[in-house]
Amino acid sequence: MTDIAAIAAAAERLKGHARRTPLLESPFLNEIAGRRVLLKPECLQHTGSFKFRGAWSALSALDPETRAKGILAYSSGNHAQGIAMAAARHGVPSVIVMPEDAPALKLANTKALGAEVVTYDRAGGESREAIGETLSAERGLTLVKPYDEPMVIAGQGTVGLEIAEQAAELGITQADVLVCCGGGGLTAGIALALEDRAPDMRARPVEPFGFDDTTRSLAAGEILSNDRPSGSLCDAIVTPQPGNLTFPIQQRLCGPGIVVTDTEALRAMALAFLRLKVVAEPGGAVALAAALFKADQIEGDAVIAVISGGNVDPAIFAQALTYLD
Amino acid sequence: MTDIAAIAAAAERLKGHARRTPLLESPFLNEIAGRRVLLKPECLQHTGSFKFRGAWSALSALDPETRAKGILAYSSGNHAQGIAMAAARHGVPSVIVMPEDAPALKLANTKALGAEVVTYDRAGGESREAIGETLSAERGLTLVKPYDEPMVIAGQGTVGLEIAEQAAELGITQADVLVCCGGGGLTAGIALALEDRAPDMRARPVEPFGFDDTTRSLAAGEILSNDRPSGSLCDAIVTPQPGNLTFPIQQRLCGPGIVVTDTEALRAMALAFLRLKVVAEPGGAVALAAALFKADQIEGDAVIAVISGGNVDPAIFAQALTYLD
Repeated sequence: MTDIAAIAAAAERLKGHARRTPLLESPFLNEIAGRRVLLKPECLQHTGSFKFRGAWSALSALDPETRAKGILAYSSGNHAQGIAMAAARHGVPSVIVMPEDAPALKLANTKALGAEVVTYDRAGGESREAIGETLSAERGLTLVKPYDEPMVIAGQGTVGLEIAEQAAELGITQADVLVCCGGGGLTAGIALALEDRAPDMRARPVEPFGFDDTTRSLAAGEILSNDRPSGSLCDAIVTPQPGNLTFPIQQRLCGPGIVVTDTEALRAMALAFLRLKVVAEPGGAVALAAALFKADQIEGDAVIAVISGGNVDPAIFAQALTYLD
Repeated sequence: MTDIAAIAAAAERLKGHARRTPLLESPFLNEIAGRRVLLKPECLQHTGSFKFRGAWSALSALDPETRAKGILAYSSGNHAQGIAMAAARHGVPSVIVMPEDAPALKLANTKALGAEVVTYDRAGGESREAIGETLSAERGLTLVKPYDEPMVIAGQGTVGLEIAEQAAELGITQADVLVCCGGGGLTAGIALALEDRAPDMRARPVEPFGFDDTTRSLAAGEILSNDRPSGSLCDAIVTPQPGNLTFPIQQRLCGPGIVVTDTEALRAMALAFLRLKVVAEPGGAVALAAALFKADQIEGDAVIAVISGGNVDPAIFAQALTYLD
């Protein structure tokens, strides 16, 4: 179980290893939103996304003997890079199982961060789980799942601790906290942190149109799936359904979900470029998009939004910039 | 005169008003440079450049009665925005004299930040100084120059205080500190801060090819001018010659200048996008370009580079991204 004690302990383990990202604000964005908008740019975190926090939290919580045998992860994206760097900095091996048709840059980055990448043929019916199980059995690797993992949720929750502290320094103790939501690890972790450290704040998941499994699940009171496995520009935060560990936490603590279109995410990326000078990926920009373009669904004089990652292809970023013309 | 006491006093005045920008690092950039590269992203400062520090320092140092009459600045760029926001937050008027053919976005931003913008016809021979003198006499405005102003240099020097502290936390006390250099306010301020707080570090100006007035002046031991007034993509850091106050400080404290091409600045912008997730403008990227591409001119196991600003047109940014293809 993840609770505030687990998050506080994760924060201790992350100290000096993860970055404490700032809280940014722009008068131009405030004007668009009609209220103060504070941004937590986790794109500035190591490896370009919040995932490094969960990875570091999970690895640093393992007993050293187990950790030394190595870490296993399935991921084609931000979790892979987080695990690879956290493992390398712990001096232990990591194996990332990725589809062989994953983008070349992501494969290269993951390798360059020190991981062994094992590819599988998605179309040919190879199962990453079967490959992973064989590797685990042979080498004694520990699997770290991307969100349904208590120590990962605890690590992501450190974002919530920082938000509570940094907002209080600005005199803000009441706000909707908008969180880019895939499997729900970041949203659940932040919600748990806020429950204890900023009880008048409320975490709210934000999802891309067509992939609003968490929003619909929260409304229905049960876990519902997406119709399609992929097809959003916001691929980094598309998962089949909310996690078994993360959903009950969200159900207990979160406000209703908010849904934005891919176009709104691109416009938010362009405004983050222009007004904040940070690089957001489409999935990392959905919470900012909600803050700017869904003001009627938000309560209070201030809103806080997490920019969860910045690992975006240059061509897609250039496409986003055309919205400034 | 600006000295370490003036810089420390400016830091006190800036507390809670300017952002303390982080020190970023990427293993990918370290590999290109062949040593550790630490980046100080002042593009994340209010108004997107370090200029807010100098503006806040200068305004907060004025006696309240003088300040209340208003502030005058000549600028088509980052200094204008810094002054406009600093004045608005002090609740005093600001007047910015800008050429009428300045980019529309810069005119609009400066107005939106609360300044009164007075334009003049550059081609028609109108003099901004004459306009400024008339306005000053009529309204009692105080002129804040962009670099040859002791309190501005003191404000920029707070970047150096933070670098000394943040690098020491990483165990680094010896390094070349590369600074994007126009009139030399930032370089001189950082050099003064380092002299006291990190005496084994050395500030070094970095300039764009063809506009290396400071580099040549340092080598010659006297103030030399650029041949041309403009013509570099790095327009934000192009000035006719080193300042009368800033040059003697640089002469006493700085290492030799480094010159990079516009293409190298664009490549550095692309790498800052890819590896740091921050937006740099061409002039703001020259120090990073030197860290990455002029390694043979740099000494030591680590190098620190300031990314001085991020106010770049989307089209130029998109052009920079093509270097990643």
